[in-house]
Amino acid sequence: MQITEVREASHYIASPMRNAVIDFSQMTVSLVALITDVRVHGKRVVGFGFNSNGRYAQSGLLRERFFPRLLAAAPDSLSDAAGELDPWRIHQALLENEKPGGHGERSVAVGIIDMAVWDALAKAHDIPVAVYLAERFGRERPLDSVSVYAAGGYYHPDGDLTSLRREIRSYLDLGYTRVKMKIGGAPLDEDLRRIEAVIQEVGEPGRVAVDANGRFSAAEAIRYGEALAPLDLAWYEEPVDPLDYASLSDVAASYPGPLATGENIFSTPDALNLARYGGLRVSTDILQMDPALSYGVVEYARMLDALRACGWSESDQIPHGGHQLNLALGAAFRLGGIESYPGVFEPFGGFADDQAVEDGFVGWPEVPGVGLEAKAGLRPLLAELWSE
Amino acid sequence: MQITEVREASHYIASPMRNAVIDFSQMTVSLVALITDVRVHGKRVVGFGFNSNGRYAQSGLLRERFFPRLLAAAPDSLSDAAGELDPWRIHQALLENEKPGGHGERSVAVGIIDMAVWDALAKAHDIPVAVYLAERFGRERPLDSVSVYAAGGYYHPDGDLTSLRREIRSYLDLGYTRVKMKIGGAPLDEDLRRIEAVIQEVGEPGRVAVDANGRFSAAEAIRYGEALAPLDLAWYEEPVDPLDYASLSDVAASYPGPLATGENIFSTPDALNLARYGGLRVSTDILQMDPALSYGVVEYARMLDALRACGWSESDQIPHGGHQLNLALGAAFRLGGIESYPGVFEPFGGFADDQAVEDGFVGWPEVPGVGLEAKAGLRPLLAELWSE
Repeated sequence: MQITEVREASHYIASPMRNAVIDFSQMTVSLVALITDVRVHGKRVVGFGFNSNGRYAQSGLLRERFFPRLLAAAPDSLSDAAGELDPWRIHQALLENEKPGGHGERSVAVGIIDMAVWDALAKAHDIPVAVYLAERFGRERPLDSVSVYAAGGYYHPDGDLTSLRREIRSYLDLGYTRVKMKIGGAPLDEDLRRIEAVIQEVGEPGRVAVDANGRFSAAEAIRYGEALAPLDLAWYEEPVDPLDYASLSDVAASYPGPLATGENIFSTPDALNLARYGGLRVSTDILQMDPALSYGVVEYARMLDALRACGWSESDQIPHGGHQLNLALGAAFRLGGIESYPGVFEPFGGFADDQAVEDGFVGWPEVPGVGLEAKAGLRPLLAELWSE
Repeated sequence: MQITEVREASHYIASPMRNAVIDFSQMTVSLVALITDVRVHGKRVVGFGFNSNGRYAQSGLLRERFFPRLLAAAPDSLSDAAGELDPWRIHQALLENEKPGGHGERSVAVGIIDMAVWDALAKAHDIPVAVYLAERFGRERPLDSVSVYAAGGYYHPDGDLTSLRREIRSYLDLGYTRVKMKIGGAPLDEDLRRIEAVIQEVGEPGRVAVDANGRFSAAEAIRYGEALAPLDLAWYEEPVDPLDYASLSDVAASYPGPLATGENIFSTPDALNLARYGGLRVSTDILQMDPALSYGVVEYARMLDALRACGWSESDQIPHGGHQLNLALGAAFRLGGIESYPGVFEPFGGFADDQAVEDGFVGWPEVPGVGLEAKAGLRPLLAELWSE
């Protein structure tokens, strides 16, 4: 099994939303096709990968560094003893001559290729990637469905409480039972009114999480935390800069409920620093590293191993990014849950068309690979990159 | 003063060297020209910037995100009250809609533009950038020359002790008095023989630093440190992964001499974590953050402010990267020194042609701007991007 060609296209996944820090009107995504020399049922095995939302397309890094390295590597050096593509050796080849530290952007680019590799491998075995991942990592059969929450509650350009409640109601109507909303883009009293409205809509504060997207200073985060604590929310996410472990630790010391962070942590060394210095509390707090933004499954599995040594288990992990690779990992690794952004970042975001959310859980499709082909909206974009 | 156009070209700065982690045979650099509507002495003011070595060209990120943002910004939003380009407002415009965390690659891309902005501003004032920086940051007149050491002692493909000594001797002949050499790419006993040879050549262990490029585990780093400690070297650099503050702290607890690190730390939050958790000792250890890899002068000044609050002063800083912007910053901010890579990474590396190193110090050229035009080897590359 060899890679014969790689292709990439960049697409806009613009949304009219904004959080406390950025707006998403210029958000882009790279879609990669990794073409192999293998055929299954007469059809060429092509692995597809894309980057998770929040960071941008990586056309430049892919074309300047990572595709050339992949194609320059001796095919044998990218394969295991059985002659199959080896995600670990590919990871190593991609990071050849990359210095340590500085884990941003390139972690996204490598994550895209990693997703395409797992997609190709599962397709070569003619099984869903959730099943393939469980087998490769020596786990039990994957869960049939994974706990999923709806991330929304953005600051709409013309947003008011009525439109916010309508947005949240639409998630509940879709089958979600837990939601997350943005805070920190408005004054505290306005945010508290927004939170109260969402709690009323959802019916239970424990099913509502809030996300400050790293916007607050320690003092602001603690002040917000004091106001939020009595509400008993599901969690309080990214109160401070994602790398400001000292401030996070101060927040953790004063906020009794669950904190969540990690979507802007892209490597094992960074994840370990978060665990060591962030003051987070095992089995209370939630880690949200997104494999697709963090060099892919190979690095994510290393991260989980490293975190396990610090007491964190798979059930503490609820990855950022509402995409099918995380759904498969959630099922295979039995993670605490996954995120979803209903209706936005389409057609890349979201799950297979035939997999409705039911009572807060979503299943993976019975198709070979990650399941991108199981989304009608994606098929034309896949076909632009590859068709036989 | 407005930016009318930006241009970029990528160049190879290949060197036959390798350190303990990467080889430099594929190293690239982006050169950017920032064309303004200002003329001085009848000549168009064009600012040039490039990225420091060790990380790669940033053509993709520049063209996909940062140039479009720069050109889409209202010109007034990039200028100060006097109508001049404002490096802080430009920095803010470039990082619009960028999430926090993940400081790699984009920090390099933004650093390139930042260098070009300072180059343009100093040229618009018709003064060297060292003088301009000292004025803008309210400092005294810049130092005439800055302490500089020669980074070399690489593992040459055909290297032996004779060629290593010849390499080191060539630096001394150029006027350097302090040198740094790579370790960790060979077994300890071989490295000790290499170090001993270099000490003999330089004449004094306090003028020899060693650099492991983040290669060691904590245990290996401590073992190396035990062997190095009796030698009384200038410093022991990057013993462990640049983000592994826990291991660095263990090394600091066992190694009595100066440690140095920071070249792979690209943001203020990362620098603060290093200061908080790395176990480093103020006024013994050395910080090496490279402004050109770290979002530029704007972020570097913030880093220095944040570190000052932790007890670190300018004299503790010896930035990575042997380029003229760091020389100017060394002079304007009175840093502890700067790095240089004699003869490699040319024509981007190194200083003005008329500025020989004398007794371990190097001066900045009396030309407007950063001084790229004062290197004959660079002039054709500058002219490729811009000529009137």
